[in-house]
Amino acid sequence: MPTAAAIIIGNEILSGRFPDGNGPYIVKRLRELGTDLERMSVVPDKVQAIADEVAWCRGRYDHVLTTGGIGPTHDDVTLEGIARGLGTTLERRPELVEVLRRRRGREPSGAALRMTQIPRGARLLWGGEISFPVVVCQEFIVLPGVPRIFRLKFEAVSHLLVGRPRSALALRSRQRETDVADRLGRAAREFPQVSIGSYPRWDAGDYSLLITLESREAQPLQACRDLLLTLLDCDEVP
Amino acid sequence: MPTAAAIIIGNEILSGRFPDGNGPYIVKRLRELGTDLERMSVVPDKVQAIADEVAWCRGRYDHVLTTGGIGPTHDDVTLEGIARGLGTTLERRPELVEVLRRRRGREPSGAALRMTQIPRGARLLWGGEISFPVVVCQEFIVLPGVPRIFRLKFEAVSHLLVGRPRSALALRSRQRETDVADRLGRAAREFPQVSIGSYPRWDAGDYSLLITLESREAQPLQACRDLLLTLLDCDEVP
Repeated sequence: MPTAAAIIIGNEILSGRFPDGNGPYIVKRLRELGTDLERMSVVPDKVQAIADEVAWCRGRYDHVLTTGGIGPTHDDVTLEGIARGLGTTLERRPELVEVLRRRRGREPSGAALRMTQIPRGARLLWGGEISFPVVVCQEFIVLPGVPRIFRLKFEAVSHLLVGRPRSALALRSRQRETDVADRLGRAAREFPQVSIGSYPRWDAGDYSLLITLESREAQPLQACRDLLLTLLDCDEVP
Repeated sequence: MPTAAAIIIGNEILSGRFPDGNGPYIVKRLRELGTDLERMSVVPDKVQAIADEVAWCRGRYDHVLTTGGIGPTHDDVTLEGIARGLGTTLERRPELVEVLRRRRGREPSGAALRMTQIPRGARLLWGGEISFPVVVCQEFIVLPGVPRIFRLKFEAVSHLLVGRPRSALALRSRQRETDVADRLGRAAREFPQVSIGSYPRWDAGDYSLLITLESREAQPLQACRDLLLTLLDCDEVP
């Protein structure tokens, strides 16, 4: 199954000036699309911080989404960070200059021209409702930070991110987590294809433990559920 | 000023089974406490993924908060990951066995005993409303994932995280970001003590650009605001 990582870029997220809506959107959509998000990080608008994270992710995931830092201002350094992390440099792309020229009806300014410099050899993905293309550089898909535009662009490239969704179910128990941990461990060893999660709850009335099961394979998922229903004092969440 | 990083540990966050509330809580509280959050990452319940992130963060920040993965079940591997990332091993701590013994009125089971094994040489912080202490290992502060307990424990150690809050203000403009980018860059160079952010808005009625200024020093913050009020067509957000 395809795997993905996400790099959320922006001082405003780390400082708490604005809440991050793009990270949760990526989590939700990748779950729906069936691609496994294996890492997410939030880093500041600093070239080296972005480059370090890019270098770390390189070659480890099928896709790496970045959000933020691709506008015209001094703190938009994502493309420079990606280039440095990949050991390449930026180059001006005439197609992008042409987009800006058409949009404004005149030659783009110095600041706007920053947006036309992208890592050497990057691909440009056009289409959907977007006027400025999405930059794709090896496995790195470069998305903006402004939530409305971010979502448009995410959806314009979402066909690249299609995997196979998991099936999920949940059990609830009145037992304590420490009293069932050994049996959950046994089920986890017996069904390696099933991801088993265990979450104590204090806010759920008459039960105290939520156990989640997820798998891309229907048969082990059901068999694991059946095993846990016999091992534990629990029932399935409707 | 003190700096911090946060490592959010849990498959359930990456898979989208549960939304992460602890990361946003850390962002909000560190802002209030005046400590700069410089990195946040979400990693799965895998020993090596945690160890890699711990090794990366080690020595780079004054504090590193981890959340999640410290219960008794098979997927609770945070302490093992921290030990591996720091190049040490786990050791059983009699004080923690005693806490569990008192809480349950009998000898702790095999699974519960997992919670008594912590990285060699770690400190235990007691106090506040918590019965089980917070494990602190060098600059790593190990917090649970269950939101209610996470918040109690965060507050019990929040005195360690006190820095100096920034002052903030915001300007709004009807100009386009590309048309003011050069002047924002000039202000950023002139006032390195001020963090300047620029955020296009499509949902804010009669203005299209929000400019945020933050600083720990009052005088440069005001001077930077005054400069931008003369350079741009903008006013201060009341």
